[in-house]
Amino acid sequence: MATAEFELIGRYFASLGGGDRIALGIGDDAAVFDVPEGEQCVVSTDTQVEYVHFFPETLPEDIAYRAVAAAASDLAAMGASPLGMTLALTLPEADELWLHGFSQGLAAAVRDLALPLMGGDTTQGPLTITITVHGSVPRDAAVTRGGARPGDRLCVTGTLGDAAAALALQRGELSGDRLPEAEDVEWLLSRFNRPIARFEWLSFLRAHGSAAIDISDGLLADAEHIAAASGVALTIDSTAIPLSDALRRAAPSEARLFEWALGGGDDYELLCTVPAGCQIPDGLAVIGEVVVGQGVQIDRPTSGAGGYAHFN
Amino acid sequence: MATAEFELIGRYFASLGGGDRIALGIGDDAAVFDVPEGEQCVVSTDTQVEYVHFFPETLPEDIAYRAVAAAASDLAAMGASPLGMTLALTLPEADELWLHGFSQGLAAAVRDLALPLMGGDTTQGPLTITITVHGSVPRDAAVTRGGARPGDRLCVTGTLGDAAAALALQRGELSGDRLPEAEDVEWLLSRFNRPIARFEWLSFLRAHGSAAIDISDGLLADAEHIAAASGVALTIDSTAIPLSDALRRAAPSEARLFEWALGGGDDYELLCTVPAGCQIPDGLAVIGEVVVGQGVQIDRPTSGAGGYAHFN
Repeated sequence: MATAEFELIGRYFASLGGGDRIALGIGDDAAVFDVPEGEQCVVSTDTQVEYVHFFPETLPEDIAYRAVAAAASDLAAMGASPLGMTLALTLPEADELWLHGFSQGLAAAVRDLALPLMGGDTTQGPLTITITVHGSVPRDAAVTRGGARPGDRLCVTGTLGDAAAALALQRGELSGDRLPEAEDVEWLLSRFNRPIARFEWLSFLRAHGSAAIDISDGLLADAEHIAAASGVALTIDSTAIPLSDALRRAAPSEARLFEWALGGGDDYELLCTVPAGCQIPDGLAVIGEVVVGQGVQIDRPTSGAGGYAHFN
Repeated sequence: MATAEFELIGRYFASLGGGDRIALGIGDDAAVFDVPEGEQCVVSTDTQVEYVHFFPETLPEDIAYRAVAAAASDLAAMGASPLGMTLALTLPEADELWLHGFSQGLAAAVRDLALPLMGGDTTQGPLTITITVHGSVPRDAAVTRGGARPGDRLCVTGTLGDAAAALALQRGELSGDRLPEAEDVEWLLSRFNRPIARFEWLSFLRAHGSAAIDISDGLLADAEHIAAASGVALTIDSTAIPLSDALRRAAPSEARLFEWALGGGDDYELLCTVPAGCQIPDGLAVIGEVVVGQGVQIDRPTSGAGGYAHFN
């Protein structure tokens, strides 16, 4: 791309900065921002590649929004408050219609997630979006994967499997008689395209979370990450997993329903452990327990998810 | 790529973390690091795409080293001390030989630039490397592009044009009688493949720099950035530009010599302005002045570089 094209791209993003914490935003060699006194900086990087993480027909608004939400979700899972982000955008060409949509989605994410765009790099090449998010936590208060203790309860936010069903829909795996109602399709797709980084649980997590992770690999795989990092076993009661009505209606079988709920990795809900005595607020579902041992145990077959011990 | 391949890749990078400032490194949802008390966090993102920023035949050691140095150079240009980095690596396949070389180059950069690897994301796709570097500066002490004042002197570190000559060599533009001696070729290629982020000028820049930028677009283009951000004009004395002996010997003509020195964008030397009374240390060349006006003026034709006023 020519210099003029890079300048054009820059103009689409120029208005997405700002905020009290950004001392120097887009336009210099680097950005400068303030980490609140007594707090530590938290950083996570997340890449989305066309054909791998999203379909070529995905709206640029949704590509942008989802890229930011997926990265921001890692901050939420650490109990970190959002500060700002950088965007590394690799584009095959400077298509104004695409850039307009992409910047609209980015603007929505900046607003919803309180993550001003501090800087970035635009390059020419196959469509790839890397978002690096920055947040902060009070010193030594980050909620890691490693703090789960036997006796803790295992909890999850939101509902699971919706984004996996949306993926199946987009792949054309559900069709004919099995196609859900338009309203359900729309809702499930919105769960895939517009995931919610669960910053609403920040103060609860900081106060009570012994361990946390955002579910990006699927419930079983991410539970395994907590179990391994904490040196404990997790038991999951499949009947306690929160499932949306739309998901139940969309599932052609119970096996498929649980395949989505246990293996789906695009919901970006939070999985956390809290001490047994902790009051569980509305919106958080207790789905299991932390016990002595290793690995993840669940009360139903997990259809080839592999590596998981079953009980009952 | 399968999960096992991502785990394999992770193993190559696991030992590149560490350091006093990193409270939580690779392996959790996000990294946690400390910004020194009273300082601000500085962040810059830089992407390198195969076929665009490097050749397919470039050694993976050099791809890694150059990607980090190019990003780190932006910290040096802000007067920021290095803290740590994240790596977003998109790879077509998990090739062990390539990964070994890449991790060796990354390790060398981590060591040379004091930038431990704090975290990252590995994805499958066309080869793309995004490095996000983090550093710190005392509050309000970042050296921006916007502080040059009439009367200041314009200075540059190192020698210019070497990496541009190396690019010409790699493209096969110099051949036959005109091919430089093997020793010069090697040295010029090392200037392209192993650029030096100029952290050695950190204390000088912080003490005296009124404005600074790293030369990644070429001397004239980056001088233009300082001029525009500072609202001043810069005059450049072409005879004062530091040129290496290898570059002089490699240049087929004086026109080509200055094309490389004025337009070459891969040296990552620092261009800065300092007040007139400032003592200029060895290793820093005064190449011009800051005057009232706008744009960049130079005492020789700039062969189609476009947009630059000439004087004399």
